[in-house]
Amino acid sequence: MIKGACLVGQSGGPTAVINSSLCGVVLTALKNPNITNVYGTLYGIDGVLSEQLINFKNEDINELELLKTTPGAILGSNRIHLPELDDNSPIYDNILNTFKKFNIRYFFYIGGNDSMDTCNKINQYCQKVNYDCYVIGVPKTIDNDLCCTDHTPGYGSACKYIATTISEIYYDITSYKKGRVTIVEIMGRDAGWLAAASKLASLNGCAPDLIYLPESDFDVEDFLIKVKNIYDNKKFAFIAVGEGIKDKDRNYIQNYQNFNNNDTFGHVQLGGVASYLCSLIEQKYHLSVRAIELNLPQRAAAHIASLTDINEAYNCGEAAVNFATSGVTGKMVCMNRVNNTTEYNTCNLNEVAGLVKEVPSQFITACGSNITEEYILYAKPLIEGEPKIHFENGIPRFSKLNKEIVK
Amino acid sequence: MIKGACLVGQSGGPTAVINSSLCGVVLTALKNPNITNVYGTLYGIDGVLSEQLINFKNEDINELELLKTTPGAILGSNRIHLPELDDNSPIYDNILNTFKKFNIRYFFYIGGNDSMDTCNKINQYCQKVNYDCYVIGVPKTIDNDLCCTDHTPGYGSACKYIATTISEIYYDITSYKKGRVTIVEIMGRDAGWLAAASKLASLNGCAPDLIYLPESDFDVEDFLIKVKNIYDNKKFAFIAVGEGIKDKDRNYIQNYQNFNNNDTFGHVQLGGVASYLCSLIEQKYHLSVRAIELNLPQRAAAHIASLTDINEAYNCGEAAVNFATSGVTGKMVCMNRVNNTTEYNTCNLNEVAGLVKEVPSQFITACGSNITEEYILYAKPLIEGEPKIHFENGIPRFSKLNKEIVK
Repeated sequence: MIKGACLVGQSGGPTAVINSSLCGVVLTALKNPNITNVYGTLYGIDGVLSEQLINFKNEDINELELLKTTPGAILGSNRIHLPELDDNSPIYDNILNTFKKFNIRYFFYIGGNDSMDTCNKINQYCQKVNYDCYVIGVPKTIDNDLCCTDHTPGYGSACKYIATTISEIYYDITSYKKGRVTIVEIMGRDAGWLAAASKLASLNGCAPDLIYLPESDFDVEDFLIKVKNIYDNKKFAFIAVGEGIKDKDRNYIQNYQNFNNNDTFGHVQLGGVASYLCSLIEQKYHLSVRAIELNLPQRAAAHIASLTDINEAYNCGEAAVNFATSGVTGKMVCMNRVNNTTEYNTCNLNEVAGLVKEVPSQFITACGSNITEEYILYAKPLIEGEPKIHFENGIPRFSKLNKEIVK
Repeated sequence: MIKGACLVGQSGGPTAVINSSLCGVVLTALKNPNITNVYGTLYGIDGVLSEQLINFKNEDINELELLKTTPGAILGSNRIHLPELDDNSPIYDNILNTFKKFNIRYFFYIGGNDSMDTCNKINQYCQKVNYDCYVIGVPKTIDNDLCCTDHTPGYGSACKYIATTISEIYYDITSYKKGRVTIVEIMGRDAGWLAAASKLASLNGCAPDLIYLPESDFDVEDFLIKVKNIYDNKKFAFIAVGEGIKDKDRNYIQNYQNFNNNDTFGHVQLGGVASYLCSLIEQKYHLSVRAIELNLPQRAAAHIASLTDINEAYNCGEAAVNFATSGVTGKMVCMNRVNNTTEYNTCNLNEVAGLVKEVPSQFITACGSNITEEYILYAKPLIEGEPKIHFENGIPRFSKLNKEIVK
């Protein structure tokens, strides 16, 4: 194998374990005899273009270890979309110049389907110009919507946060004899994997009464009737919805509120879909309602991350280095489950780039308003295990890197 | 001391540790030779009136132990406000009938300032009709706004959740080179104790740039200028606001949006104040914004409760039983800090009932947009320590009681 430096970057929305994958890449690369230097790029491709690289040899090993339980994307992320290779954009020359200057021969990019498109293009460009560089994508997304992998690093921790929070909210809202209609809005614009995770609270007897994903056709009238029936029986109703639920014509339910409700300045003012559905229930049945948007903690709550997920994220980073230094390029690390253990393999970047894996129909009940036992069997192993969180002054102590720019 | 049964109830909004106080009352009472039976009332006074009592001897001791880390109010809560004694309402006779029927000689009520009013009235009624019963209030509120106590059980856990979540959000939002204006809305209609807790994230280097409490006068124009300056310097801005922030005339800022923004049906549609402030920033500066309402997890996130808080909540319950069986009545347990240890004393119920303790001025910076070091010294001990959470299937296992109604 060629000797040279490796470069690692992060891209797309953070997860609770994207830094654990970074840790896996860095600690493995630091030990690899073919890798002369381990660089990180700040803000992904942006740092490659502006030569904002750091050298991991300058970082404290304890801080690197803490990456396993540190939220956010510690190197900085970006959402740059590379142009088509055929466009002859100068951007590729700029990337190549940085690669040459630092003798980068291994490139690892931790991200979702858009980031795999970036990986794919960089790999193709290196081959086109005969620059010897091994490019491997490391999967990352709380959305679990990447193709070619059983699940994605980041998803298990988001599920654990969601299932825990749903359980806690259940215990809270059932404290009253006569409760409210509580609607929890869960991330997921195009796929309902995260909303489905609310069903895992059934392991604690705390699942929502109704769960709606974007994959099913949402009918507002049918929803209102179901909620009323549940409330009449139980004196409360607990509902989870994916933010991207759509009607049978595939229009976002959230957009319904646009038609009549403009803000002071004439702009469309978008509340979340949970808040919109709450207003419909309040209006029609005069019931007390509460909308809860789980928001950023879904991807940032590292303190309740899944140990399984942390380890798998690390292993994906480690596998990426091992694959690259064995001569593999233009691939993404993927996970297969074989007899309840996770195997790390590779798949083609172009089978992942830009594609979305929806929740399969067998995970959604026929009526479209709940989640099946089969999903629980699929997801339960992903949320198992609790990491040792390093607390300091009563709050989690996260990693702090020097990030000294390499001249 | 008189021998007889004790009755314990929960009231007002739940906290992460209200069940730990219940545990303290129950386990202490079960061991007390003067207490013949340990009853719990379902839904507070409601269960007293409808004779919905449970006997804790019928509950599994492991489930009782789990109460220390179980959110919600496990017995059920209520918001019943008792009439004045002088009104000669039959409600007091009904309460007395239940007390007599079950020979209740010790009554413990876990709640906030409204619940202490209930305690006070029941104690006065028992004395008026010469019914020998020892009534002690056990403090509880995430709001920390009870008088006569250094702090309240429930506050420390809410602070730990808020400081942890603020830290995680900080790591997430600083992942981008050019970020958004993020405004986090924190509970607290009349007092800013919870919003102040966002400052504890400074222990991790993650504090918001600006923190606003209801105690200060909020000026929208000044706020907008400050946000713009911060954003221009840092390329992101991070702000925490108490939901009840008010202007110099003590009008809620949240109500500003009412004047122009009505919903489809002509009703006032209230988003949170963070969402309103975000819309102003977006409109004026065309910056990307994100409003995050921390919502119910602030009082329900038992998985990240403070061990100090759990223990203090338990100790307050224990102390209540010990005071009552020593002949004290008509008091609330309160906590004093002496040389960094907490002492458990009593105060008069009428010095707590219906009153609110605001955040003192020395905890708020002179400009009204941040929190002082003095507050950090006050609050830091309250969030220290992590409980052992019993996980099952990857999520916390909470207590499950039989709640068999005593005939």
